[in-house]
Amino acid sequence: MRVLVPDLPAFRALARPGDTSLPGADLAFYSNETGVPQGEAQGAVLWLANAATRDALLGTAGLKWVLTLTAGIDHVQGKLPPGVRLYNAHRLHDRAVAVHVVAGILAASRGLHRFRDAQRGGEWTRTSIPDSGLSTLGGKRVVIWGYGHIGKLVEERLTPFGAQVYGLTSKTEADLVDYRLAEADWVVLLLPSTDRTRGLVNAERLAALKPGVWISNQGRGDLIVTGDLLAALDTGQVGGAVLDVTDPEPLPAGHPLWERKNVVITPHVASTTTDLLERGAAYARSVILDLL
Amino acid sequence: MRVLVPDLPAFRALARPGDTSLPGADLAFYSNETGVPQGEAQGAVLWLANAATRDALLGTAGLKWVLTLTAGIDHVQGKLPPGVRLYNAHRLHDRAVAVHVVAGILAASRGLHRFRDAQRGGEWTRTSIPDSGLSTLGGKRVVIWGYGHIGKLVEERLTPFGAQVYGLTSKTEADLVDYRLAEADWVVLLLPSTDRTRGLVNAERLAALKPGVWISNQGRGDLIVTGDLLAALDTGQVGGAVLDVTDPEPLPAGHPLWERKNVVITPHVASTTTDLLERGAAYARSVILDLL
Repeated sequence: MRVLVPDLPAFRALARPGDTSLPGADLAFYSNETGVPQGEAQGAVLWLANAATRDALLGTAGLKWVLTLTAGIDHVQGKLPPGVRLYNAHRLHDRAVAVHVVAGILAASRGLHRFRDAQRGGEWTRTSIPDSGLSTLGGKRVVIWGYGHIGKLVEERLTPFGAQVYGLTSKTEADLVDYRLAEADWVVLLLPSTDRTRGLVNAERLAALKPGVWISNQGRGDLIVTGDLLAALDTGQVGGAVLDVTDPEPLPAGHPLWERKNVVITPHVASTTTDLLERGAAYARSVILDLL
Repeated sequence: MRVLVPDLPAFRALARPGDTSLPGADLAFYSNETGVPQGEAQGAVLWLANAATRDALLGTAGLKWVLTLTAGIDHVQGKLPPGVRLYNAHRLHDRAVAVHVVAGILAASRGLHRFRDAQRGGEWTRTSIPDSGLSTLGGKRVVIWGYGHIGKLVEERLTPFGAQVYGLTSKTEADLVDYRLAEADWVVLLLPSTDRTRGLVNAERLAALKPGVWISNQGRGDLIVTGDLLAALDTGQVGGAVLDVTDPEPLPAGHPLWERKNVVITPHVASTTTDLLERGAAYARSVILDLL
């Protein structure tokens, strides 16, 4: 079986004899710089590819399956040739995303973004205690919209802080969705981007939330109508937001979201860890072994 | 029993009839602005008092006991008249301090201070994955130097992240202290400031730590020799620091610690929550009831 894989050291290692080799698979290496090798291939591991590389991979003759080493599939869906199976890699990312979610909630609850801004100005600033805005998360209601494996990992990590965590799934009744969201101190978005979820967090939904609610978006940027979020931040209806994904993404220089003091932005790194490439190669190897 | 208490709404409420009143105690109210009331008093609740107010309180005739609503006692010790008992308020602060410690460790592990700096510049910056410096805390060794009730709360909150937490107490053998510290990815300081702990984290100790170690100081600023820490940050021996206390404190404008990108400073707010004053009054009431 010939398989196209990213040209990264961790994947090159799979082609060398040793404990992590892949006997039975003929690996060929692509990159955005050198392009996609000629010839037929039965499989492709899609990762860190730009649009041109992705299109070239998906156009490979003989293709039977594609493994995208991302959790989301919106960059492949609709572009897949007929009959080609698609696998994704939730488990590769779940744990890091859950940790990133919890880190963002805790950091905001302890005002770390505000103290960082004060640090940049060299200011030892203390507000009065009642105005500090600082909490321990004890008794706070955290609603996870899109409760799956990541949501469960988030819940396990937030519960020791005394937070009350509620999960919403596609099976949760609409009335209960409304009720839980209206009571939430934090709304964590872990939904995929689909026709049913895009723009779900709009002016109407934001107005129905508890005043001062914080929003954490670690799903897809287009779940939120950015202009509606900005308006709700202006009125104080939304207390703040922690965004690892944005719409547009990447967020361009000069975009008003950058300037908001109570918006914390990370550049779509929730699933990143220093060892992600090695973990990705190991994950791809296990899938290819299964397929062999 | 006449007791001097801070002139704050939460303490004024203790003098009014109701569920939270204190029958049997005659409360008198002091503040930094109006001073300390005349006359004898048997007890004093010391909180948010400047040096002059503190000295006036400790000079009150008839004083039998002082309750400081802080965890540390270094601001009272040595100034207490003979025969006056001192109580402190560990339990009032333990939980918030533990949450602040964990928030700081997680936020640094997810690079939130760096992304905040990038946000201020309006930059969607992504480094290569191996250079990201991002982790989930999984498998990281966290050594808590000064392991007591707060340390236990920290451990309970870090363990779900897969961190390996080790506590050091005054009873831990010196060899084991050295061994644990040399292996630590994070050293969390929760020690009090005493003759034996001041300057404990000096050039020699820093040189014996694992290169790239991060330090979290939530104890007292003078546990660390600030100049030695700056030197160790310069060489990369220390990867970074999260400091809620500093030496000097407050950190003056222009101090070199402010400028370090990999130093995260919060202005001694680890135990602060918006409801701290109410919690403090409730705590003082329970102690006074016991003493009555």
